[in-house]
Amino acid sequence: MARFFGKWYCITDLRFWLLVIILFNDAEQVNAVWPMPQRISQSTQQYTLNPQAFLFQYSNGSVVQPGCSVLDTAFKRYFAIIFPDVTGEGRNSYHIWFEPAAFTVFVDVKKDECDGYPDENSAENYKLSISAGQAVLSSETVWGALRGLESLSQLVYQDDYGAYFINKTEIEDFPRFPFRGLLLDTSRHYLPVQAILKTLDAMAYSKFNVFHWHIVDDPSFPYQSRTFPDLSNKGAFHPLTHIYTQTDVRRVIAHARLRGIRVVPEFDSPGHTQSWGKGQHDLLTPCYKGDVPSGMYGPVNPILDSSYKFMAQLYKEVALVFPDSYVHLGGDEVSFTCWKSNPNVRAFMAKMGFGSDYTKLESFYMENIMNMTAALNKTSIVWQDVFDYHERIPQDTVLEIWKGTPPKYREELSRITKAGHRVLLSAPWYLNHISYGQDWQNAYLVAPRNFSGTEAQKKLVIGGEVCMWGEYVDATNLTPRLWPRACAAAERLWSDEEQTSSVAQAYPRLQEFRCKLLRRGIQAEPLFVGHCKHEYQGA
Amino acid sequence: MARFFGKWYCITDLRFWLLVIILFNDAEQVNAVWPMPQRISQSTQQYTLNPQAFLFQYSNGSVVQPGCSVLDTAFKRYFAIIFPDVTGEGRNSYHIWFEPAAFTVFVDVKKDECDGYPDENSAENYKLSISAGQAVLSSETVWGALRGLESLSQLVYQDDYGAYFINKTEIEDFPRFPFRGLLLDTSRHYLPVQAILKTLDAMAYSKFNVFHWHIVDDPSFPYQSRTFPDLSNKGAFHPLTHIYTQTDVRRVIAHARLRGIRVVPEFDSPGHTQSWGKGQHDLLTPCYKGDVPSGMYGPVNPILDSSYKFMAQLYKEVALVFPDSYVHLGGDEVSFTCWKSNPNVRAFMAKMGFGSDYTKLESFYMENIMNMTAALNKTSIVWQDVFDYHERIPQDTVLEIWKGTPPKYREELSRITKAGHRVLLSAPWYLNHISYGQDWQNAYLVAPRNFSGTEAQKKLVIGGEVCMWGEYVDATNLTPRLWPRACAAAERLWSDEEQTSSVAQAYPRLQEFRCKLLRRGIQAEPLFVGHCKHEYQGA
Repeated sequence: MARFFGKWYCITDLRFWLLVIILFNDAEQVNAVWPMPQRISQSTQQYTLNPQAFLFQYSNGSVVQPGCSVLDTAFKRYFAIIFPDVTGEGRNSYHIWFEPAAFTVFVDVKKDECDGYPDENSAENYKLSISAGQAVLSSETVWGALRGLESLSQLVYQDDYGAYFINKTEIEDFPRFPFRGLLLDTSRHYLPVQAILKTLDAMAYSKFNVFHWHIVDDPSFPYQSRTFPDLSNKGAFHPLTHIYTQTDVRRVIAHARLRGIRVVPEFDSPGHTQSWGKGQHDLLTPCYKGDVPSGMYGPVNPILDSSYKFMAQLYKEVALVFPDSYVHLGGDEVSFTCWKSNPNVRAFMAKMGFGSDYTKLESFYMENIMNMTAALNKTSIVWQDVFDYHERIPQDTVLEIWKGTPPKYREELSRITKAGHRVLLSAPWYLNHISYGQDWQNAYLVAPRNFSGTEAQKKLVIGGEVCMWGEYVDATNLTPRLWPRACAAAERLWSDEEQTSSVAQAYPRLQEFRCKLLRRGIQAEPLFVGHCKHEYQGA
Repeated sequence: MARFFGKWYCITDLRFWLLVIILFNDAEQVNAVWPMPQRISQSTQQYTLNPQAFLFQYSNGSVVQPGCSVLDTAFKRYFAIIFPDVTGEGRNSYHIWFEPAAFTVFVDVKKDECDGYPDENSAENYKLSISAGQAVLSSETVWGALRGLESLSQLVYQDDYGAYFINKTEIEDFPRFPFRGLLLDTSRHYLPVQAILKTLDAMAYSKFNVFHWHIVDDPSFPYQSRTFPDLSNKGAFHPLTHIYTQTDVRRVIAHARLRGIRVVPEFDSPGHTQSWGKGQHDLLTPCYKGDVPSGMYGPVNPILDSSYKFMAQLYKEVALVFPDSYVHLGGDEVSFTCWKSNPNVRAFMAKMGFGSDYTKLESFYMENIMNMTAALNKTSIVWQDVFDYHERIPQDTVLEIWKGTPPKYREELSRITKAGHRVLLSAPWYLNHISYGQDWQNAYLVAPRNFSGTEAQKKLVIGGEVCMWGEYVDATNLTPRLWPRACAAAERLWSDEEQTSSVAQAYPRLQEFRCKLLRRGIQAEPLFVGHCKHEYQGA
């Protein structure tokens, strides 16, 4: 594998940095951080780390102290990541609080959110200063501290004899976009909880901070609802083995929280609901063939009060189960064929004065749903389709752009931000789509704010999402299809665009990061010919 | 997942089959065999199997008896495959030879090749007759018995309560093509031995019978040679961790043998040899820039006696290490740029009267190499390029066709078989190439004998190969990229073409077979939306 020898990405004054390269050897390589920090200065001054004398410690002045669940568990986790060869007793050496340590990571956090959840306003900025015998990591929140620990862990490297090193380094870092999401689709194929947890681990390594759980769709309804158990009893691929119980969901949310990741569930309607109809009588629109029902069903029936009552109850449960203040309502790809075929729907259209414009009926439905979630104090995300039939969308609704190639989605970015809505970009990051060769480069070269609009409009782009739709993906191929391709989007969403505009410069760094992912047990596929010191052994 | 209810593929007389469907339930599904046997008759008559009272037994009349390494180990292996829920003691129940058994598989083999290797002439035909209390599996060779055991294992199924069943079935089966290969490339990425062994397992499930080991190439030389240890010491990605020792190679060959799989090594020259040059001085052609060496190297230097001496010694070792009577010599993609630049090569061309036709030089080289392997009593396989510069190719050389799309490779099939050479088809089966969607269908619809030529020419197509080149593939993504896509080629190479011409009919059978692969621990990716009863759990 191409080896990456440190480059000086130095924004701050370099005068205080003394560069002395005494001997050139493997151990002197300066390691990179992925995604690239906003400001990083690295020196070739190298410190040896001894796992037996390495500890994480809360600074005296830190508001957060031992007992903080997010950081206590992160210290354990990162100790194992930083020292992958250390097993058993060694792994607990960070517990030896009172012994003198050769290297101490002092962690200083200003706000106590230890028992909370990360949210849209969570600050993720941090500073990391590594010098002889210590690292100082300071951040406003525990979420920022997590990002700093991740960077720290990537700076540690081993020589051919297994010794651990870190170089003198200064980092000042913050994300470019507050919303850096990854969508998994657990309806077209069921993903075992273990596969979701593993994905959350890899997300944390790339500093993603939102897990968009596209939990149900046409093919199956694996969410085990407390209010409507028949939805999964009858709509899941299997009512016992292919479902997410309340315990499973809690486990996913807890795992994500400890990694500073939000969980935004999507219950997509009125389309994409075929599986819902199996467990909920009269929810879907009966399609007609001529004057008689055909036996087929279409989208949620938008003319019945019972549909809205059901949706309100379902969303009430969802709002309780998923703590995040956002919820994704879907609203995409609604086919009008079935609605048009149904005489009752046609009568309703006439009564409402919608004429033959079924987008008005769709808007009517979505408006009702958005009012429900607003009443639950949730911010709604919807797919761009909901804007495209543009009727009364609450201003704080976030639109997710998923259609088209660059010129097309840029126009959509212009239009939606002009209307004052916040947007998420996912169109160029449909990573379920594959092609032969290095297609990570396309994902890398996306410029989310490159569209015609004012500065105010550009600021309405709050981030983007990698989507991994499940038509051809399940736990067998999820990880190599996602990683390291998703890392390209991760850097675009976190790092400064000008500093990370070159695919050629990114390549060796991404190669190296991919090897780190392997070392951490993530089955990330290769970018091109080459090798990692520690190859994936599972088969 | 779409469930497959048995179809009657009945070539033999059906009069003796009594079909009584008393009750329709899950356990009555009739299971399919992949690849489709030449003749299979299945009844809905169902027998319960009890793992505690199930045994494999050599027939009294069988030439092969206990102590036969190939079948003794196969009985163990298939017991575990047939009864995946049985662990511990249960797994040994086939040892209870003298107790009355409720179901006995009598195995009758006519030739004792228990300690030999499968070869190009090995008969793989078998007959399998399943009736009340017994199965009778008869075959000419142990290799045929292995194929029959595989089919038997696929006929067993479980109901929702975990009980095991098999239906009354008659199979008469044989392969359409004797050479059904799969290529792995261990040079562009190193594949741990475990990944190779796992691939051999999956190959056996699909009745592939040749592992084409493209073991070395430009990027690395992982084969640890006894004669020339510097080849891997200096040419491997890492001289200790990224090599195949002699023990590793023996392990692969032994694992393959027990599954009736030949191992054909490829040491590709004169091109694709950059890594060889690191450990073998003066082997490669020095390239020139004007009048001086540029420091770059080209293909093997074809004008030096030392090159041929080296190749002869290397192939002598290869002939000893790899027992198969075939060896692949490569001969593809030789660039003439470096040869042309070298004044000594140009002088040699003049001396030999080759003019400026470098294909003559290439032929000269290949002819020498083919003579070496002929002297070692090995049959040579070479890539089609060697035919394309058509000089004196020994008649028994097998040409492998790898270039072009259907019309193009069909012309090549015509040309090469017209010249009387045997051919292998791999052009349509480069499964390292990927695209979004169900691309297994392309691999399935290949018709290897659909080209213009006589019947005699068609018979010269001895089979084909799935190729998994390593530019973008290593152990992280090998298995889901290969399986179940390679199964499509496997059925094309084994089964009757007319019986297996429909993608629509193949789809549910392949879905079911893919679920069986998952159950056997093969990380085979999904074909499309759906689920398996037992999903892949690793992540």
